Amino acid sequence: MNNFQFVNPTKIIFGKGEISKLQDEIPAKAKVLLIYGGGSVKKTGLLEAIKSVLKNHVYGEFGGIEPNPAYETLMQAVELVRADHYDYLLAIGGGSVIDGTKFIAAAAPFTQGDPWDLVAKHLPIETALPFGTVLTLPATGSEMNNGAVITRKEWKAKLPFMSAAVFPKFSVLDPEYTYTLPQKQIANGVVDAFVHVMEQYLTYPVLGKVQDRFAEGLLLTLTEDGPVALQEPENYDVRANLMWSATLALNGLIAAGVPQDWSTHMVGHEITVLYGLDHAQTLAIVLPSMLTIMQEAKAEKLTQYAERIWGLPKDMPVDAKNKAAIDKTRDFFEAMGVKTRFAEYGLGENVVEEILASLKEHDMVKLGEHGTVTPEIVRKVLELSL
Amino acid sequence: MNNFQFVNPTKIIFGKGEISKLQDEIPAKAKVLLIYGGGSVKKTGLLEAIKSVLKNHVYGEFGGIEPNPAYETLMQAVELVRADHYDYLLAIGGGSVIDGTKFIAAAAPFTQGDPWDLVAKHLPIETALPFGTVLTLPATGSEMNNGAVITRKEWKAKLPFMSAAVFPKFSVLDPEYTYTLPQKQIANGVVDAFVHVMEQYLTYPVLGKVQDRFAEGLLLTLTEDGPVALQEPENYDVRANLMWSATLALNGLIAAGVPQDWSTHMVGHEITVLYGLDHAQTLAIVLPSMLTIMQEAKAEKLTQYAERIWGLPKDMPVDAKNKAAIDKTRDFFEAMGVKTRFAEYGLGENVVEEILASLKEHDMVKLGEHGTVTPEIVRKVLELSL
Repeated sequence: MNNFQFVNPTKIIFGKGEISKLQDEIPAKAKVLLIYGGGSVKKTGLLEAIKSVLKNHVYGEFGGIEPNPAYETLMQAVELVRADHYDYLLAIGGGSVIDGTKFIAAAAPFTQGDPWDLVAKHLPIETALPFGTVLTLPATGSEMNNGAVITRKEWKAKLPFMSAAVFPKFSVLDPEYTYTLPQKQIANGVVDAFVHVMEQYLTYPVLGKVQDRFAEGLLLTLTEDGPVALQEPENYDVRANLMWSATLALNGLIAAGVPQDWSTHMVGHEITVLYGLDHAQTLAIVLPSMLTIMQEAKAEKLTQYAERIWGLPKDMPVDAKNKAAIDKTRDFFEAMGVKTRFAEYGLGENVVEEILASLKEHDMVKLGEHGTVTPEIVRKVLELSL
Repeated sequence: MNNFQFVNPTKIIFGKGEISKLQDEIPAKAKVLLIYGGGSVKKTGLLEAIKSVLKNHVYGEFGGIEPNPAYETLMQAVELVRADHYDYLLAIGGGSVIDGTKFIAAAAPFTQGDPWDLVAKHLPIETALPFGTVLTLPATGSEMNNGAVITRKEWKAKLPFMSAAVFPKFSVLDPEYTYTLPQKQIANGVVDAFVHVMEQYLTYPVLGKVQDRFAEGLLLTLTEDGPVALQEPENYDVRANLMWSATLALNGLIAAGVPQDWSTHMVGHEITVLYGLDHAQTLAIVLPSMLTIMQEAKAEKLTQYAERIWGLPKDMPVDAKNKAAIDKTRDFFEAMGVKTRFAEYGLGENVVEEILASLKEHDMVKLGEHGTVTPEIVRKVLELSL
């Protein structure tokens, strides 16, 4: 096991009806900005329910955070926070709204320069406004971590940042608010969470038995309950298991003490900024090909994955077993309704050079747990994904 | 899945050589009291190593915290803290030292009454001194939770208390400092951690798939690596897996959203105060009998445990399978060198009435996940454990 540090101070408030706890979690004297996305929180009644819980608080609102939250939009919120002196933020939505809120929280007090540099130049985030979240979409894990991914549309850049200052103070997770999600969003969320786990699990063994088994527990739950969630949108326990799995998939715990990959995500980000595919769609395209091309370096963990997640027999020849596990991964994404080939999204072979150029521009040239996923490797991955 | 709240702000610093991080984790201006037990931290050189790391800090020391830390001893430390104005504590040791430090941290600022009432009367702990820990014995999980168990020798009372104010600020976990532990302490620690998991797992199903699989991941790791730790005391990865398992066994995570039992622990506490048995010894005596007597109420989870932990076949008749799983639990404790019968500790049938009287005195009369472990049930459990 590798040395590690782990800390995660976010308070999770989980279960049906728990948005009533908001009134106690947000300081009584706070001036709260409610931040949300495209308006589904209005349709479902969640926004009204939250306003009712916060009837004794002073609050305003900012809607319109888009998927892959854009610097350009977020800076409008930053201006509002500064002008009207909001001192507490409440993100209501999925990963995009929460990631966007993290940027707003860090950017609002940062007046000594362009807040984009907090992302692009990794300037240290000394302080951030406190914020909580009400999660509506299990997927990114942003509700219990200190990372975010921000897009600058004009520059076709989608870049991550992290800071201890942007852990949510609390997150309310009520599975019932996921009942009305479109199937596509549930499917995307399950694929996203699944690939988060894989990026921290499918590397090389370091005898971290607990980390491996926790990761496998999440993968098994996602593969079992993901498809059921599509069939039974109001199955509370299925939605609860998916929600808790997605949170634990990226809260730092399963990464503690083990190698991490993240090459699939870095390639995926470029696909989203170039062609507008959903984040999960890009992961579903890249991961099976990445595992195939990196099959040798990942052989030991692939075998463990094959046996423990897909129940492939111990006595099956290793190469065939590992290949079968990759096929089952692709089948799982397809069964969730997420396509796994560029062609299925109407994209052709020109993507290869374009994505490679974009990766190079963002200095993403030595990816993976060994830093061996070079542009030449990515080229093979992309060609295999056409 | 049940509704739950989960928060755990303790920072874990894990791995070989990591005590060097102490100098940055403890505020430079703190006046630190180093708190330890019977002196093994001197023998192993750990205390000297820590003093060397803290050479730029102001510190004093208090040794002599005993197993099952006693109010009488701890109040001496409280007087020292008050008299010399220590404002930061560092626990160096296992669960007893850490539990004791939690009491000292809460008791020192509590001057408006007898600090024992913080335990016995569950008075709210408004404030506590900040403290960190350096863990030397994987077992209780106290290094990453907000609970402690304190003994008042004169009254033969061993009682738990909990407060958000007594989470450690940080805990340093270096598996190498467990190499020199006596085999008995490693064995006790593995049994203790194992039973912690069982108290949160072996109840009734609520479809909490992630919680179940995380618990099972810990149980499997403990059953695999526990015996190896006895054979190979300097196997780093084995010690690391046990250490991280014991911490995660009782940091709140696997309990979130599922029922909990704790009847074995409550009965075990009485055995320790009455007869001086080690905590783990009492658990090894009680758990197999408790599972046997409660076999019907726990049938579903027993079957899951039988199949997933002990690999018993799906098609085996349920009653036989559940009984076999209990037998394997007892065998595991015995294989770790921890005896599972009162007689093996020289105790006879008089224990039954004495323990029942002690439980009644401490109002422990409706134990277990359903509150159905009454004195009559405990009587059967104890009779089965003779």
